[in-house]
Amino acid sequence: MSKASTVASKVRTRRELVQALISGEIGFHELPQDLPTDVQAQIRREALEQITGASLQDIGQFSLDSSRAALRNCENFIGVAQVPMGIVGPLKVCGEHVDEEVYVPLATTEAALIASTNRGCSALLAAGGARVHVEDVGMTRAPVFRTAGLDATKKFLQWIEERLDDIRGIAEKTSRHLKLLDVRPKSFGTTVLLRFRFASGDAMGMNMATIACDRIVRDLIEPETGVDCVALSGNYCVDKKPAAINFHEGRGKRIFAEVIMEAAVLRRILKTTARALVEVQYRKNLLGSIAAGAQGFNAHYANLLAALFIATGQDPAHVVEGSLGITCIEAFGPEAVYASVYLPDVPIGAVGGGTELDTQRQALRMLGVEADPSRPGRAALRLAEIFGATVLAGEMSLMAAFTSQDLASAHEKLGRGAGSPDGHHGRG
Amino acid sequence: MSKASTVASKVRTRRELVQALISGEIGFHELPQDLPTDVQAQIRREALEQITGASLQDIGQFSLDSSRAALRNCENFIGVAQVPMGIVGPLKVCGEHVDEEVYVPLATTEAALIASTNRGCSALLAAGGARVHVEDVGMTRAPVFRTAGLDATKKFLQWIEERLDDIRGIAEKTSRHLKLLDVRPKSFGTTVLLRFRFASGDAMGMNMATIACDRIVRDLIEPETGVDCVALSGNYCVDKKPAAINFHEGRGKRIFAEVIMEAAVLRRILKTTARALVEVQYRKNLLGSIAAGAQGFNAHYANLLAALFIATGQDPAHVVEGSLGITCIEAFGPEAVYASVYLPDVPIGAVGGGTELDTQRQALRMLGVEADPSRPGRAALRLAEIFGATVLAGEMSLMAAFTSQDLASAHEKLGRGAGSPDGHHGRG
Amino acid sequence: MSKASTVASKVRTRRELVQALISGEIGFHELPQDLPTDVQAQIRREALEQITGASLQDIGQFSLDSSRAALRNCENFIGVAQVPMGIVGPLKVCGEHVDEEVYVPLATTEAALIASTNRGCSALLAAGGARVHVEDVGMTRAPVFRTAGLDATKKFLQWIEERLDDIRGIAEKTSRHLKLLDVRPKSFGTTVLLRFRFASGDAMGMNMATIACDRIVRDLIEPETGVDCVALSGNYCVDKKPAAINFHEGRGKRIFAEVIMEAAVLRRILKTTARALVEVQYRKNLLGSIAAGAQGFNAHYANLLAALFIATGQDPAHVVEGSLGITCIEAFGPEAVYASVYLPDVPIGAVGGGTELDTQRQALRMLGVEADPSRPGRAALRLAEIFGATVLAGEMSLMAAFTSQDLASAHEKLGRGAGSPDGHHGRG
Amino acid sequence: MSKASTVASKVRTRRELVQALISGEIGFHELPQDLPTDVQAQIRREALEQITGASLQDIGQFSLDSSRAALRNCENFIGVAQVPMGIVGPLKVCGEHVDEEVYVPLATTEAALIASTNRGCSALLAAGGARVHVEDVGMTRAPVFRTAGLDATKKFLQWIEERLDDIRGIAEKTSRHLKLLDVRPKSFGTTVLLRFRFASGDAMGMNMATIACDRIVRDLIEPETGVDCVALSGNYCVDKKPAAINFHEGRGKRIFAEVIMEAAVLRRILKTTARALVEVQYRKNLLGSIAAGAQGFNAHYANLLAALFIATGQDPAHVVEGSLGITCIEAFGPEAVYASVYLPDVPIGAVGGGTELDTQRQALRMLGVEADPSRPGRAALRLAEIFGATVLAGEMSLMAAFTSQDLASAHEKLGRGAGSPDGHHGRG
Repeated sequence: MSKASTVASKVRTRRELVQALISGEIGFHELPQDLPTDVQAQIRREALEQITGASLQDIGQFSLDSSRAALRNCENFIGVAQVPMGIVGPLKVCGEHVDEEVYVPLATTEAALIASTNRGCSALLAAGGARVHVEDVGMTRAPVFRTAGLDATKKFLQWIEERLDDIRGIAEKTSRHLKLLDVRPKSFGTTVLLRFRFASGDAMGMNMATIACDRIVRDLIEPETGVDCVALSGNYCVDKKPAAINFHEGRGKRIFAEVIMEAAVLRRILKTTARALVEVQYRKNLLGSIAAGAQGFNAHYANLLAALFIATGQDPAHVVEGSLGITCIEAFGPEAVYASVYLPDVPIGAVGGGTELDTQRQALRMLGVEADPSRPGRAALRLAEIFGATVLAGEMSLMAAFTSQDLASAHEKLGRGAGSPDGHHGRG
Repeated sequence: MSKASTVASKVRTRRELVQALISGEIGFHELPQDLPTDVQAQIRREALEQITGASLQDIGQFSLDSSRAALRNCENFIGVAQVPMGIVGPLKVCGEHVDEEVYVPLATTEAALIASTNRGCSALLAAGGARVHVEDVGMTRAPVFRTAGLDATKKFLQWIEERLDDIRGIAEKTSRHLKLLDVRPKSFGTTVLLRFRFASGDAMGMNMATIACDRIVRDLIEPETGVDCVALSGNYCVDKKPAAINFHEGRGKRIFAEVIMEAAVLRRILKTTARALVEVQYRKNLLGSIAAGAQGFNAHYANLLAALFIATGQDPAHVVEGSLGITCIEAFGPEAVYASVYLPDVPIGAVGGGTELDTQRQALRMLGVEADPSRPGRAALRLAEIFGATVLAGEMSLMAAFTSQDLASAHEKLGRGAGSPDGHHGRG
Repeated sequence: MSKASTVASKVRTRRELVQALISGEIGFHELPQDLPTDVQAQIRREALEQITGASLQDIGQFSLDSSRAALRNCENFIGVAQVPMGIVGPLKVCGEHVDEEVYVPLATTEAALIASTNRGCSALLAAGGARVHVEDVGMTRAPVFRTAGLDATKKFLQWIEERLDDIRGIAEKTSRHLKLLDVRPKSFGTTVLLRFRFASGDAMGMNMATIACDRIVRDLIEPETGVDCVALSGNYCVDKKPAAINFHEGRGKRIFAEVIMEAAVLRRILKTTARALVEVQYRKNLLGSIAAGAQGFNAHYANLLAALFIATGQDPAHVVEGSLGITCIEAFGPEAVYASVYLPDVPIGAVGGGTELDTQRQALRMLGVEADPSRPGRAALRLAEIFGATVLAGEMSLMAAFTSQDLASAHEKLGRGAGSPDGHHGRG
Repeated sequence: MSKASTVASKVRTRRELVQALISGEIGFHELPQDLPTDVQAQIRREALEQITGASLQDIGQFSLDSSRAALRNCENFIGVAQVPMGIVGPLKVCGEHVDEEVYVPLATTEAALIASTNRGCSALLAAGGARVHVEDVGMTRAPVFRTAGLDATKKFLQWIEERLDDIRGIAEKTSRHLKLLDVRPKSFGTTVLLRFRFASGDAMGMNMATIACDRIVRDLIEPETGVDCVALSGNYCVDKKPAAINFHEGRGKRIFAEVIMEAAVLRRILKTTARALVEVQYRKNLLGSIAAGAQGFNAHYANLLAALFIATGQDPAHVVEGSLGITCIEAFGPEAVYASVYLPDVPIGAVGGGTELDTQRQALRMLGVEADPSRPGRAALRLAEIFGATVLAGEMSLMAAFTSQDLASAHEKLGRGAGSPDGHHGRG
C-alpha cells in the first residue's frame, strides 16, 4: 500500500484520480486524504459510473455532513441510500421515561407497514396507551481463551473471581460511561468463555465493551495468567446471531409493553374480536413458532425494529437479536384482550454510531430523545420505551389483520401502488 | 374516518392543513390525496416540527421519486433517512451468473465495516476470487388451519395432496412469475400448517406468495373442505424470525461461497496465519456458538447483509434470516486454509419493494443486476452470488482481525473518527 | 490379548479364574468361552465381590436365558438389574392396529407414576378411549463425507441422485426387512451429510440401517466416487441426541393421540375442570417450555416412555428422542377439553434387541404385540399406538394433578412409602 | 371407587380376587392392602395371564424386596423387568471423590456397548486414567404464576427478593438435606416463572424440591401476595425435556472429564490415530450436530447414561437431560489427542428412589457409593465422577470405531450373537 499511497498523494487532477481508480492503479481507499470527503465521494462515483455504466446521481444527492460520515461511519464513502421515512402516531406511551403521546418515524420500503402500525397506534390510543417497562441488561462481550485443561481452567476462573476489582478498574478506565456489571464464565475441555456485561449509559456500547475487554485481556489477564485469548469475541456475547443465551439472559435493553383492549376498540379500530385474536395468537405465535423451532414467538418484531433502527441510526444488524421475543394475547373478561410484547434483546443507543448522522439525529429529536449528561442512560431508556410501544402497535394491528383476512388484499392494494394509507401491513 | 376525510378534502391552505394535523383534527394519513406527495411530506414535516420542536430539514432533503415511494413503499411519507454508502472492491466473484470483478456498495453506519470488508476483497482477489454457488430454494408462506382433530386432519391432508394441481393452478394465476414448488404439511392435535413454497423469479416473492396463498385458501381450500384458515401466516413460513426449519430447509436463496488462501495471502493481506485462523474458527464460530445455543455459526453475516440489503433495497428485517449459517475454515496443507460460508436462508430480489427506489436501483445497476424478462430469476441469482462473495470477504477479514488482535484498536481509531480507511472491522 | 487368551483357555478351576480376574491377569472379557454364561457370570460376580467387598447376590438372581443375553445384549454379563414392573389399565385404545382395552406394563422406580397413569387410563376409558394414529417415519442413519469443496460436492450429490437405484439395491440386500425410503443430503464447505431413511418392518432398525449404510458406503460410494466417508454416523441421523431435525422430520414412529373429555369425566376422575387444565397447558407446556428454550412442549412424555421402554425391551437411550413433542389441551365447548399428544420421534421395535429377553417378551405378549411375518411392521405399529395412548393417559393425569395442587402431597405419601395407590404422579 | 373398595375388602380367596380383576369388578389397585405384596403381585399376574393369554412367569421371578418396591417405587406391582447387567473396567478415575480403579456395572440390552466401553476403559487406564471434575449445580423446580400484568409482576418479584430469607426458611424446614441456593425469575406479560435451585445432599432431589416449592407457594407466596400459582412445575425447571436453559445453567451435577492419549495408546488399544479422531470429531460431533440443530454435541452420552442409570437406580427419564453436552477431541502435539466430555445436566443421587432397590444398591456398593451422613453429598459426587469417566471411556471407544470403520461389522457380529466380546459399540 505504501507505494500506492505515494502515488496517490502526488498532486493530481480529479480526472487523473478518476482514471487511476478505473485503471486500478490506486484503490478506492487510497484517494488523497486531504481532499474534502465530498470531493472524494464524487471522484469515486465518477470512476464507478465509468467502470459499471450505471448512473449514481441520486446516491450523490445528500445533505448529511459527509466529512463526519466518511470518518466515523463509512469508509470509501460515495453517497447515501435514501430510505423513505414515514410517520405513525400519535402513539401514547406510558412508561417511566416517557409518559406522553409521540410521533414515531419509521424508515421502510415495505408497503403497508406504516399504515398498519398507524392503525395499531390508534387502537393503543383508544385503549389508554401502551404501558411499557424497560430493563437495562447491558452490553456483553465474551472473549474466548484456551487453557491446558480442567485444572488450568479451574485456576484461571478462580483468578478471574479474585481479581474482579482489578478487572473492573481497567474496564472503567477506558470510558467514564462504562460500568462492569458482571462476568459470566462458561468452560469445557480447554475452552473458557468469559461473558463480560457492561452498563454503557446512552451508548449502545458494543464498541466500548470491545475496547474495555481488549484492555482487560491485554493488560491484565494475559500477562498475569499466561492464558491465551484466542479471540476477543468468542460468539458467547452473542452479537448479531440469534441465540438461546440472549433469549434467556437478555442483552442491551429488555423491553416489555402491554395493553388491555376492550371489545369496542377491537371492533371499531382493529376490525376484530377478542376470540379471533386469541385464536390467531395460539395457532400462529405459539404453535406455529413451536413447530418451526423458532426463537421468535411473535408476528413481526423484526419489521418494526428494522424501520425504527434505520430511522434512528441504530445498527440494523441488531434486528437479528430484536426479532427474539414473546407476544401474548389472552382473553380478558368475555370480550376484551390483554396483550403484551416481550423483547429480551434490543441493543440500542441514543448517542454514537449512526445516531450522530443528520437525518437520524433529527428523527431522535422528534422523539424527544437527547442525551442529558446529568442523567446518563435516560435517553436510551426513553427510546427503548418508545420502541416497545411501537412494536406493540405493529403487533396488534398485524394480528388483527390476520383475523379479518384482509392481509393479502392490503398488499395487493398498497404494494402495487394503488393504495389508500388505511391498509394493513402484511408480512410476518 | 369518513368524517375526517370529508373535512380534509375541503380545499385548505397548507398552513391550515398543518394546523389541522397539529390539533389532531385530521390524522397524518388524512391529507388530501390530490396534493403532490412532496407537498404532503412537507406539510407533515412542518406539523411535526411544530409539535416536537425538532428540525426535520435533512429528512426533507432527498431526490427519490416521492410519488412512487409514498404509494408503494412508505405511507405517511415525510422524507428519507440518509444512510451513508461506501464501496468495496474489486471483488472477484466466480459463479454461474457472475464471473468477473465487481464493486459492491454497502450502506452502513458502522465504522470499520467497509475498510475491513475491502481488505477481505483484496485477499479474495489475490486468492483468485470467491467461488460461489446459489440455489433458489423459493419463498414460503404457511397458513395455519384448525380442524376437528386427527381424523379430520387426515382427510384434509389427503384432500390437499389430491388437489395439488388445482392448488397450483390457482396460485400461478395470481402472477405469471410464480411457480408452486411444493406444499409441506405439519399437523398435531387440531392444528394444520401448510408450508407452500414458490419460485418467484427475480422478485423476493413474499407478497406474491401471500397473495397466492390468499387465493388458494379463500377460493379453494376453505369453500371445498370447510376447514377454517386461522391465519394466512402461521409462523411456519418462517418470516423474519430465526427458526430451525429455515436453517434446515432453507428459504429464499441458499448461498455457498468458498476460497483457498495460501500462506502468502494470509500473511501479506490478512496479517495472519492458517493456524491462527483455524484456532479462532474452532473456539469462536464452532464452540462459542454451540455454548451460546446460537443458530448462527459465523462471525458476522448479519453485518454484511444489513449493509447490502439497505444499499440494494432488500427488506432489512430479512437480515434476521440471513444471520443463520455456518462458516468453515480448515487447514489446507501445512500453511493454507480452505474457507467457506453457507447461508441457507437469504430472501432477496432484483425487482419490487425497495429495489425500485432511485438510490437502491442505482446500487443494483452498479452490480450489473437488472432483470431480463427473457431470463427470469437470473438477476436475483446474480445478486445472491455477489452477496455470498461479499459475506466471505467480510468474514475472512474479521476472523483475521481476531487473530492479530487489532480489533479493538481499529475501533478506537475509526469509530472515533481518527481513522485511516485501512482499519479492520470489529463487531461480531 | 492373545497371550491372556491363551492363559485363560488353560483348564482352570473356577477359583483359579476368580483369582486371575482379581489379580488382573485376565480381563473380565477373557474368561474361557466354552464355560456356560451362567458360570462365567458367577465367576465374575465372585471376583467383583472380593475386589469391592459388595455382595452381588441379587444381581445374580434371574431367570432370563443368560446364554442369549450374554451373546446378544450384554457382554461381560454378571446378572441383572431387577426393575419393578407394575400395571395400568384397562386402557382403551382406538387405533388402526389396536381397537380394544389393554393392560400396560410399566417398569419404573418412580413412586406415583403408575398410580397417576392408571387414573389417566380411567379417565380415557370414561371418555370413550384414546384415538391414536401412527406414521412409520422410518429409521435414519447419516454418514458424513469429506469432499474437496463446492464443485466436488455438487458432482457427488448428483452421482448419489443418479445411482439411487443401485444404492437401494445394495441396502435392501443386507436385510429382507429393509426398504430404503429416501436420502436427504445436507452440505456446506467440504462436508456432506447423507441422511438415509429406511423402513425396517417390526425392528427398531438402527442396526439394520447402520449395516446397510456400511455396505452402501464401502461397496459403492467410496470405491466409485473416491469421496471419503469420515464416519458412518455424522450426527445428522440424529441418534439419541435431542435435535431440531428429528422434531421436524420425525424418526422411528410419529405418534398422535387425542381425546375429548367432558366436564363430568374431568371432575369425577381427574378432579379438575376444563378451565384449569387449559390454563396449566398455556402457562406450563407452552409458555414455560418456550421460556426454557425446550424442545419438549409437554409435561412428562419421558417418564412414560422410559417405563414403557424398559418394560418392553426398547433402547432406553431413545427416550431422549421420545421426550420431544407437543401436548395440546384446548377448550371444547364451555366445559370440556380436547387434548392431544404428538410425538414425532419414537424409535421402537417389536423384535430384536431387548425385546427378545424373557421378561420383556412377556410384557410385549401381554400387549398382544407379536410379529406376524405375513404382516411385517404391524406389531411395531400396534406397540406404538399403545404407547401413544399411554402417554396421553399419563399426560392428562399429571396435568390435572397440577390444577388440583395435590402433586407434592402425592409424592410425600407415595415416595415415602405410606402410599395408597390412588395418588398422582408428580414429576415433569 | 368407594363401592369397589368395599367389595374388595371382603375376605375372598385368591381365586375370587383373580376373577374380580378379570371381570373388572375391582381394579388392579383395589386388591386388599393387607395381602402381602408378593401375593398381590401373583394375583395380578394370574389375572393378566388369563386376560391376555400371555405367560408372565419370568416377570414373577425376582428377589427384590417387593413390599418396599410396591410401596415406594411401583404401584400395581406385578414383578420385574430383568435387564442384563455387565461389567466394564478397571476404569481409572482421578477425581476429588474417587481416585482409584473401579469396575462399573452397566445394565443394557444393546450389543457391543459393554465391549466397546470396556475397550475405552483400557485406553483410559493406559493413558493414566480419566481426570474428572464435578460441580453440584443443584436440583431445580420452577412454579409458574399468573399476575395482572407488568406492574403486578414488578411488585411480586420485588416481594420475592425481599422475602428470600423467609422462603429459604420454609424450604429448609421440609428437609434437613435441602438448601435453597437461589431463585431465578423469568417474566413476560401476565406470566412469572420462578426457578428455585436447591442443594439436596446425596439425593437426586426432585421430590424434595417439589415438596419444598409446594410449601413455599401454599404457605407463603400465595397467601401473602395473592398471586396464583398455576402449576408447581412451569416447565422452566426443566425436568426431562431437552432445553437450552439446562444446557446453559446446568442441573443436577455438571460433569467434566478429560484425558490425553498418546499415539501408542491410540494405535494399540483404539486402533486409530490422532488425525482420524480429530477429523471425526470435527465432522460428526461439531458440524453434524450443528447441521441437525442438536443440543448434544457428542457421540452417545445417552447410551452410557441409560446403562448406568438403570444399573444404579437413577431415574432413566433423566437420560434426556444427560444427553446434552459437548465432547472435544483436539490435536495434542503431532500424534496425541486431548479429549474431554462435558455434561452440564446430570440429575443423579446415591439415596432415595430406585437406588434403594436390591440389585441397584448392590451395583452402587460395587462402586463404593454409600451415603455417609457425616459427609452429605459426597456419595452422589463420587457417583457423578465415575459416570463422567465412564462416559469418556464410551465416547473415546465409539469415536475410534468410526475411524476404523469397524462399526457395522461389530454390530453384525455381536448383535446377531456370534460375538466375541472384543467388538466395538456401534450406535450414536
